[in-house]
Amino acid sequence: MRNTIRLLISCRDARGIVAAVTTFVAEQGGNLLDADQHTDLDHGEFFMRVAIERAGFVLTPDTFGPAWQPLAGRFDMQWSIHWGQPVKRVAILVSKQGHCLSDLLWRRRSGELDVEIPIVISNHPDTADIAREAGVPFELRPVMPGTKAGQEREVLALLAAAQVDVVVLARYMQVLSPEFVRHYPHRIINIHHSFLPAFAGGAPYRQAYERGVKMIGATSHYVTEQLDAGPIIAQDAAPTSHRDTIADLIRKGRDLERMVLARAVRLHVEDRILVSQNKTVVFE
Amino acid sequence: MRNTIRLLISCRDARGIVAAVTTFVAEQGGNLLDADQHTDLDHGEFFMRVAIERAGFVLTPDTFGPAWQPLAGRFDMQWSIHWGQPVKRVAILVSKQGHCLSDLLWRRRSGELDVEIPIVISNHPDTADIAREAGVPFELRPVMPGTKAGQEREVLALLAAAQVDVVVLARYMQVLSPEFVRHYPHRIINIHHSFLPAFAGGAPYRQAYERGVKMIGATSHYVTEQLDAGPIIAQDAAPTSHRDTIADLIRKGRDLERMVLARAVRLHVEDRILVSQNKTVVFE
Amino acid sequence: MRNTIRLLISCRDARGIVAAVTTFVAEQGGNLLDADQHTDLDHGEFFMRVAIERAGFVLTPDTFGPAWQPLAGRFDMQWSIHWGQPVKRVAILVSKQGHCLSDLLWRRRSGELDVEIPIVISNHPDTADIAREAGVPFELRPVMPGTKAGQEREVLALLAAAQVDVVVLARYMQVLSPEFVRHYPHRIINIHHSFLPAFAGGAPYRQAYERGVKMIGATSHYVTEQLDAGPIIAQDAAPTSHRDTIADLIRKGRDLERMVLARAVRLHVEDRILVSQNKTVVFE
Amino acid sequence: MRNTIRLLISCRDARGIVAAVTTFVAEQGGNLLDADQHTDLDHGEFFMRVAIERAGFVLTPDTFGPAWQPLAGRFDMQWSIHWGQPVKRVAILVSKQGHCLSDLLWRRRSGELDVEIPIVISNHPDTADIAREAGVPFELRPVMPGTKAGQEREVLALLAAAQVDVVVLARYMQVLSPEFVRHYPHRIINIHHSFLPAFAGGAPYRQAYERGVKMIGATSHYVTEQLDAGPIIAQDAAPTSHRDTIADLIRKGRDLERMVLARAVRLHVEDRILVSQNKTVVFE
Repeated sequence: MRNTIRLLISCRDARGIVAAVTTFVAEQGGNLLDADQHTDLDHGEFFMRVAIERAGFVLTPDTFGPAWQPLAGRFDMQWSIHWGQPVKRVAILVSKQGHCLSDLLWRRRSGELDVEIPIVISNHPDTADIAREAGVPFELRPVMPGTKAGQEREVLALLAAAQVDVVVLARYMQVLSPEFVRHYPHRIINIHHSFLPAFAGGAPYRQAYERGVKMIGATSHYVTEQLDAGPIIAQDAAPTSHRDTIADLIRKGRDLERMVLARAVRLHVEDRILVSQNKTVVFE
Repeated sequence: MRNTIRLLISCRDARGIVAAVTTFVAEQGGNLLDADQHTDLDHGEFFMRVAIERAGFVLTPDTFGPAWQPLAGRFDMQWSIHWGQPVKRVAILVSKQGHCLSDLLWRRRSGELDVEIPIVISNHPDTADIAREAGVPFELRPVMPGTKAGQEREVLALLAAAQVDVVVLARYMQVLSPEFVRHYPHRIINIHHSFLPAFAGGAPYRQAYERGVKMIGATSHYVTEQLDAGPIIAQDAAPTSHRDTIADLIRKGRDLERMVLARAVRLHVEDRILVSQNKTVVFE
Repeated sequence: MRNTIRLLISCRDARGIVAAVTTFVAEQGGNLLDADQHTDLDHGEFFMRVAIERAGFVLTPDTFGPAWQPLAGRFDMQWSIHWGQPVKRVAILVSKQGHCLSDLLWRRRSGELDVEIPIVISNHPDTADIAREAGVPFELRPVMPGTKAGQEREVLALLAAAQVDVVVLARYMQVLSPEFVRHYPHRIINIHHSFLPAFAGGAPYRQAYERGVKMIGATSHYVTEQLDAGPIIAQDAAPTSHRDTIADLIRKGRDLERMVLARAVRLHVEDRILVSQNKTVVFE
Repeated sequence: MRNTIRLLISCRDARGIVAAVTTFVAEQGGNLLDADQHTDLDHGEFFMRVAIERAGFVLTPDTFGPAWQPLAGRFDMQWSIHWGQPVKRVAILVSKQGHCLSDLLWRRRSGELDVEIPIVISNHPDTADIAREAGVPFELRPVMPGTKAGQEREVLALLAAAQVDVVVLARYMQVLSPEFVRHYPHRIINIHHSFLPAFAGGAPYRQAYERGVKMIGATSHYVTEQLDAGPIIAQDAAPTSHRDTIADLIRKGRDLERMVLARAVRLHVEDRILVSQNKTVVFE
């Protein structure tokens, strides 16, 4: 992915966009590795992701904007370009449970997730060892009654100092304030341990147990100001039975959570996600 | 299944129940084909399903009760016994869409579902041909504004005349009144086209589309007086993407609905389901 | 799909193909509904599927070829175009078991599969009723020892007379001769009741049972001269356990077979499949 | 699980076994937590797993045998009893890739896998850090041309010294000799990175890629003298597409391997598996 430039586009649907974009890329010496597009017919919106081989493409971060602007202006595009390097900087926020943290660290180590993880922040000390073993700075920022606003300011300062691109809530059991969320629009990824919109809020496994469902799920989504209601990136589900206690659901759920969160983070850092109308377009 | 006797038991948990029940069966010449039990530790409840080979078992529908009663009384059991023959009589209620109806009829024809289907009842004429081709009487009972109560009485009369054991709502788009439900406690099986408790009520595929979920589901449950809130028997889910229109969700959902409903009906007619605390114990 | 023109392309990979194709479409007044491409880096091959809205596109079946040829020639393309109408004509070949046949007929009836089914051919009479009820001509062509070659000639004559585009082997338990296969290259779709390449050949459920696998599968593939070795279109699998007898595997497998075959047929008739190197590129 | 006694039984099928066993347990003050049985009708074999609450059960490791023997003798049972404590001792053998090792260590740390892991043995140094961070002794025993027999003897000596109950091959890329296998009959668990029996032997992801399958799988099985042909414990599969390179299959496969191996190990250490006729009976 480091040698792949990603261009994300959204605009009103119109004829000729794909031809215009791919012709532009070809004219700039770009080898098209992938081009995906989608039209939301309900809203007349067009979405596109273009992956261009770095070698041969004559434009640079400095020269791309001026060259591209006429075309972007013609279709009134919203767009962003991602040059593959440097890789994205990911902060992980966590509470007591370390399974998602461990999993993400392992995927970075194995090379599967090509990111920097400059910081792990937690409101509990339980996962400090996991971060330390992986060589990642661990910052403890507890939340006490009445200190939440102050704690959030500290966390924001840490994130700013670490220059992170994206914040992953890897079972961070705190609701973020709207102010916090606004600092990272569609750049905070949460894992919720249920098949949303079922069992939003607290204790979803208990809720699932009490309802007697025959499958449990996990949902990764961008955090918005409304709790558990942001654009969904990835979901999965697994069968359960009457034999499963809440502890069994938690155990089975951990595997779902790890897989679904890792998938969402990978999709995000590979610039495969566009957001519109509180929904995601995911180009895989 | 016709040569298998099924005994379903629930009672307070206590030591020695399994030994007592299996010893009883052995003493009556019964070959135990299967014995499944479950203890709900939260409520101290015990559940058991025993499958006995008909050949060799000396008791009959007439003599079983008196022989069994002392043991049942000792543990204060709720119990039922099912002799495998005659097979269960299943009524199918349907509205405009015939996919679940077709599927159930096909499964009966193939021998997979060993039941009688003496009647199909609908509030619309659309599926009359499907029933006719399968040789099943089709009764049209439309619902007009203000005629719902009368229509329900007519449907109940048809069900009574057909002597049905269980009522399957194969996409019957009418909410049954509490009075109706009380006639068939835990004997009305519905298929809801969502992953309950998500998207209860009307238009679940539209709700799913608007929420932007990445999987859709289907849920089969016993109907209770509270809409879409009865004990869940079976669920399944399938992946979706931003490319799926509502029509695509409906298409994908049809396959889920057919599979999940067929599964629930099979579990019910094989006497594999016990209900407690608005949840099911399913012995497979 | 009837108002969507599909253009399928394969050629050596080169820069500018996507731009050239989409520019051509735009210049001919075509609204691009979908454009998918794939590059097989191992073999340097490029694949593309373009879906164009019929309305507005100025070319016709008569004028497309001459207009397109210069571009096709420039990249040395193999290509085909499908105008959406008339819909494809599908023959179904079947033996004793009717579940896949019933399912495909039901999907056509429901509108999910937008095809003509002018003929059902079988070497056994068992499914004649299913075809008759659906109003499709049923032709019985038994295979006796020594009559196979003659029977194949008769079947080919029937297929030719019915002017079919594609032949679906919906559990047709006869191995087709290479001569037969050559009449419909990559246009005969088979369902094999195992997770190929495991359990190729006869009695796959028995093989699966004896091996003690914990999942069974189904595979739909194009038929080639080599038995069960053609390009795979779709596969699925489902869990099993030690409790499953061969009869249970057959029952569970029927649902897999129906789903997987229906999926492969839908992909084929929507012109979503390209074949190369005995593998499929499936644009969904 | 530490306070649960597990009794595993297999014998010729006969009437009254369940009654006899459960009566015995009740008479010894045992509270039956679970009782699962299965009859293999093909071979007339009976299998049973009984879980007994430790508290109240009057027998001990010393007194159980004499008390149980009359009943075991009557039915000519093969049986084993597992007292829950001390927990099982698991050796992990690994080569260059650490994903399965990391996963098992993490599951032990989280408490999900209640075992001792006294040793990690590898023929390569690559995973030494992973073992060290988890505080588990790591023994490097390389295999050179001509040294395989000697290396196996050393490994056996290490296993014996560590007093392990079960050996887990967590992507150990060496074929074990029949002599080695005979030391741990049905106590060596392997993970094979394909959906066996498809793609046995080396490079299964390459084989899968070249065959163009639409799903990949993973299989955990007991090691027997015949390569990749032992009794299967668990399998799973995941969808793939033409876009997946071999590297993508490897990435997707890692998650399958981790899940499937962890599941097999958990089933084994909870004494939920019986082996017969090269197949497993798995009581979940």
